[in-house]
Amino acid sequence: MTVTKQIKELANGIYHSILKKKQPKIESPLRALSNVKYDEKVGYFDLRGKKKARTLTVGTVKTFAQTLRMMALSKELVEKEDIATKREAYYVSKNWGDARFKEQPESDTVMDDVEAMLMVNREQMGFIPEEKGGDIAGKLIVVDKDADTGKQLKIDCTKMGSGAYSIPSSVEDLKFETNAKFILAIETAGMFQRLVKHNYWKKANCILVSMGGVPTRACRRFIRRLSDAKKLPVYVFTDGDPYGFGSIYRTLKVGSGNAAHINKYFCVPNAKFIGITPQDIIDYKLPSHPLKDVDIKKIKDLIKNDPFVIHHKEWQKALQQMAKMKVRAEQQALAKWGLNYVIDKYLPDKLKNNKTWLP
Amino acid sequence: MTVTKQIKELANGIYHSILKKKQPKIESPLRALSNVKYDEKVGYFDLRGKKKARTLTVGTVKTFAQTLRMMALSKELVEKEDIATKREAYYVSKNWGDARFKEQPESDTVMDDVEAMLMVNREQMGFIPEEKGGDIAGKLIVVDKDADTGKQLKIDCTKMGSGAYSIPSSVEDLKFETNAKFILAIETAGMFQRLVKHNYWKKANCILVSMGGVPTRACRRFIRRLSDAKKLPVYVFTDGDPYGFGSIYRTLKVGSGNAAHINKYFCVPNAKFIGITPQDIIDYKLPSHPLKDVDIKKIKDLIKNDPFVIHHKEWQKALQQMAKMKVRAEQQALAKWGLNYVIDKYLPDKLKNNKTWLP
Repeated sequence: MTVTKQIKELANGIYHSILKKKQPKIESPLRALSNVKYDEKVGYFDLRGKKKARTLTVGTVKTFAQTLRMMALSKELVEKEDIATKREAYYVSKNWGDARFKEQPESDTVMDDVEAMLMVNREQMGFIPEEKGGDIAGKLIVVDKDADTGKQLKIDCTKMGSGAYSIPSSVEDLKFETNAKFILAIETAGMFQRLVKHNYWKKANCILVSMGGVPTRACRRFIRRLSDAKKLPVYVFTDGDPYGFGSIYRTLKVGSGNAAHINKYFCVPNAKFIGITPQDIIDYKLPSHPLKDVDIKKIKDLIKNDPFVIHHKEWQKALQQMAKMKVRAEQQALAKWGLNYVIDKYLPDKLKNNKTWLP
Repeated sequence: MTVTKQIKELANGIYHSILKKKQPKIESPLRALSNVKYDEKVGYFDLRGKKKARTLTVGTVKTFAQTLRMMALSKELVEKEDIATKREAYYVSKNWGDARFKEQPESDTVMDDVEAMLMVNREQMGFIPEEKGGDIAGKLIVVDKDADTGKQLKIDCTKMGSGAYSIPSSVEDLKFETNAKFILAIETAGMFQRLVKHNYWKKANCILVSMGGVPTRACRRFIRRLSDAKKLPVYVFTDGDPYGFGSIYRTLKVGSGNAAHINKYFCVPNAKFIGITPQDIIDYKLPSHPLKDVDIKKIKDLIKNDPFVIHHKEWQKALQQMAKMKVRAEQQALAKWGLNYVIDKYLPDKLKNNKTWLP
């Protein structure tokens, strides 16, 4: 069912409740880690099914009206093929009379509610993230269209030179052509630039993605859609530290707790972690830094509370190993053995031997 | 003189000092706001000429050796056409025996010294920034080359669809083809995406740049080189707040204090500020937010201490006006009048009337 149709049906239900003099009600899933489960076969943090309902009363009338207005704005965006950021949506509300939002966090919450209600990601409703992020280079042709003419546009990511293709805020309508063997998702822009500079994607027959830290929504969705469409494995290459494991990789692979209603669109369940693993720090004799207090806290927290880590013994072992070693290592630490050691030795070795990966 | 030649001459001087049993000495400009002046004709914060010298003694022997090693690394990078980030350079030093750096801030400082000594930006020495940033869409063809074959590559920024061309970490060797009338540099990724979505660059015959906050080195250098090469005016469009004026715009236009030795490469002296000005908030009846304490402090600081603001009466007036109004406005605030008001009304109006700009 299309978003427009869903919105119409919801609105229709409310309209008829009112005509029948019944109190109209809108329902959305409860968004919290407590309402989340992890099943490896499903592949992402999924909702347990708890819901919250909002019935129209004197106390809820304003939020209720705002929710309907937000749905109407979404319908308009989808029909006109336009877009709006959360911030723009907030300012548009300034013309909604008494239903206008006072502060942006209010309108963000209502937008999240509508997103959860419709069980779609808000990009499908015409709302785009404030932040862009994610660069692509390598064996991929992105198929987009010209905004004015609707004519197909093919963007060849092997022809970007030292630059890259920058992922748009919304990737829902992109199509892909590729004969690459895999996607390599990289934490830092510096490492990405090195691999681009030396056309690593040509040697390895792959697609390079620069995440620049924790990947944005658009970057995660792009990798997911590309991986699904072309049945491509996704290998993840981050710093060897709890942030790289628990924030960057875990978010990319299974999603996060407070966005569980949309994880199914954003997670990349077939992602594998190729490094830097704690064992790599030993095997490759990498220069390292002592773990900070915040690192140690994060390791404990992941082992104790994270459904993903609890599910995977290998991750528990790796995290315990790091806690014992008391050090972390950056992906640039490989430069100790020469600037291009990562290209000539580390990546080829690691890609050949999946026993050195983490799930 | 090429960087390699400069490095060789410097090293040669030191070598011959030692042969003559003289204490070798290296000199670099003092990098501080106190050693900076602003002259509108020059167009950027320029050095006043104070220098600091480092003579080889027992106390300086390690830093002295590290400086020479860093120069040697730079020479190697330039000769091999390779690149290294600051972080990689730090790790490379781990193989320098006693001259290795203990922490990265030490190696960063030495790199800055070498940069200042040679009076070039470090990208010319083969060192690239850690962070990428800056997206391009519109009437521009970037001329780059393939890293393996050296063959020319033309990247057409009108053919990126909803995506964009992502500026590489180093832009020193790029060339440009364009018949655009101007460059529009935009603060937020969300606003950029709106202008891209509606092919604004086609209507306005321009090149769009997304800065994503304070522009990175690569983004500033890209705008500068493009503007120089094609004699293009640069119009800047940020939020109407002291951060947009004093951090984003001022840094883009004249550079910053602690990097004065390289401002001449990174500043964009012909940039003009088209909005959001304090007067725009009144003229366009924009929804606004109260100034925070940090905003008020920044305004006072800019008026009192910033050589650029002190030089330009118009900026002093505008900042005083904002202090009086006690409010700021975001560029998305224009959405109150319709999501595409910015395209249909605001930008065309502003571009037509340069009396509404700030210098």
